[in-house]
Amino acid sequence: MQWYFVAALLTILTSSQGILTTLSQSNGRYKYDYATVPFLAEVFKLLVSSFLLWREFRAPNPPRMTTEWKCVRLFPIPSIIYLIHNNVQFATLTYVDTSTYQIMGNLKIVTTGILFRLFLRRKLSNLQWMAIVLLAVGTTTSQVKGCGEASCDSLFSAPLQGYMLGILSACLSALAGVYTEYLMKKNNDSLYWQNVQLYTFGAIFNMARLLLDDFRGGFENGPWWQRLLNGYGLTTWMVVLNLGSTGLLVSWLMKYADNIVKVYSTSMAMLLTMVLSIYLFNFRPTLQLFLGIVICMMSLHMYFAPPSVLVDLPVTVKALPESLHEVSIDRSMEPNNQRK
Amino acid sequence: MQWYFVAALLTILTSSQGILTTLSQSNGRYKYDYATVPFLAEVFKLLVSSFLLWREFRAPNPPRMTTEWKCVRLFPIPSIIYLIHNNVQFATLTYVDTSTYQIMGNLKIVTTGILFRLFLRRKLSNLQWMAIVLLAVGTTTSQVKGCGEASCDSLFSAPLQGYMLGILSACLSALAGVYTEYLMKKNNDSLYWQNVQLYTFGAIFNMARLLLDDFRGGFENGPWWQRLLNGYGLTTWMVVLNLGSTGLLVSWLMKYADNIVKVYSTSMAMLLTMVLSIYLFNFRPTLQLFLGIVICMMSLHMYFAPPSVLVDLPVTVKALPESLHEVSIDRSMEPNNQRK
Repeated sequence: MQWYFVAALLTILTSSQGILTTLSQSNGRYKYDYATVPFLAEVFKLLVSSFLLWREFRAPNPPRMTTEWKCVRLFPIPSIIYLIHNNVQFATLTYVDTSTYQIMGNLKIVTTGILFRLFLRRKLSNLQWMAIVLLAVGTTTSQVKGCGEASCDSLFSAPLQGYMLGILSACLSALAGVYTEYLMKKNNDSLYWQNVQLYTFGAIFNMARLLLDDFRGGFENGPWWQRLLNGYGLTTWMVVLNLGSTGLLVSWLMKYADNIVKVYSTSMAMLLTMVLSIYLFNFRPTLQLFLGIVICMMSLHMYFAPPSVLVDLPVTVKALPESLHEVSIDRSMEPNNQRK
Repeated sequence: MQWYFVAALLTILTSSQGILTTLSQSNGRYKYDYATVPFLAEVFKLLVSSFLLWREFRAPNPPRMTTEWKCVRLFPIPSIIYLIHNNVQFATLTYVDTSTYQIMGNLKIVTTGILFRLFLRRKLSNLQWMAIVLLAVGTTTSQVKGCGEASCDSLFSAPLQGYMLGILSACLSALAGVYTEYLMKKNNDSLYWQNVQLYTFGAIFNMARLLLDDFRGGFENGPWWQRLLNGYGLTTWMVVLNLGSTGLLVSWLMKYADNIVKVYSTSMAMLLTMVLSIYLFNFRPTLQLFLGIVICMMSLHMYFAPPSVLVDLPVTVKALPESLHEVSIDRSMEPNNQRK
């Protein structure tokens, strides 16, 4: 399967996630306990991966699986990082408002690039670094509050701790992604075996979180397993399946592509959601959304197009017959060309 | 003289132009007839160029000058294009408000690139085309009305004629620039002789315009030459000298560099003016200004940095001693490197 097909699918599912979540609300609030959704998504991913692993066992050549503890014990680490990230996120929101937090969230793109370079030792060309920064700038541009909207002095007037925590949370979510990629690529175990380990711990940590919430709330709504499916509708189940599927696609990308590909698909998904919201929830289209889309498209092309396509003079300047010939050759040799 | 030194000087003078013009107003209005400023600037440019031409004559080898009419008659054309442009601009403003007009003005960057390719047959790489589009996107981003400001539905709600005329005016101002570059480069006449021709016609057309205004106004303020210097202060003279000097720098760039360089310096000047206005006229700094600056800097680097710098892997990935060695070589070979 081609990585860019998976990336495109991830973009579509991620953007429908936002829309489904909105649709699953009834007059602006959830009829169900949203904290139960990630838990069920983990369980869904675990079931799918276990099934696929079982199928691999029935194949002539059984899957590669590393089972010693020194390797298995690494798999809870992403969940632990996400746990810390959630608390930092919570702390950040006590200092800055949500729109400022959303804007700072785009830092994640750049921090992912940096950790990708530092921990995974991937080399990026100058142009690719510029593309990553432009992607962050593009997504930020699309989120600039339009004129006529409420004043956003808050953006620059938050306390320093707010910005510090915002940067920390950008680093943590980047770290979780980069660490997962490291886990998936460190050996060529079966993807499904790696998933089973990842999602087992994922399910456990989500369960622990639900239980913690119950203790915090003094069990006033009863234990979480009793109200697990309260108020679940069709859309709620679609939210769960959607979230689960995106998770499976992400771990596929982590093994066979990389974090930067994932960052691009989720950023594109964010823009796609904004465009769809114009039609679905008749949001007002803004100039900054249009500009953001152009910037992100440029960034996408800069990052993934082969250098020859970018810096060579356009083929049109060469003598005609040869040029036509060369075009066809280029196309056949460089699949990326088709993205142009 | 290096072209990028001239370009930097043009940026500084162009941005001080906006600031001086604002300073030359007294409580928000001009005490003098602003229409007289371009005329005096043309006269200033004509005097300077004539003097420099005269100096060239006293040199051992006299300047190259083509004097036959079939060549001279081409020099009023830029003035004629600007004349048409001014009227189109006037017509556009009857359909769209000034802020929409300002936003559409950024189209000039892209149209310049297109006419540059079509009329002057210059080849641009894919990356350079992207850089030009990004420059336009960046300047537009910096001008997006901030939140809390007046609503800008006007941006999308203007009549179609408004947008058509906006595009036409972008094409006309690009055409004037590209045609001037063609004039300056078509033969290797002395720059000063070419300037003398250009500014003689420039002065004549500005004079004609002043006279036309008088006829339109029924000479109620008397003929233009009587009120030429009415209400002129020190800053007014600085505005004139500044406008004249930028004109001289532009024609230098048209002969020894090109339109794209000019577009970059004037775009950077626009951003510089906005930054200075924060300090001088305590404007509120906006997120979109910051984003616009980042985008334009990226664009600048994409357009002018040598491809090798952009698409090669960073030198740091090679073995240490060689890498250090290579850096020094690169630097010495590629002046553009220093812009990095």
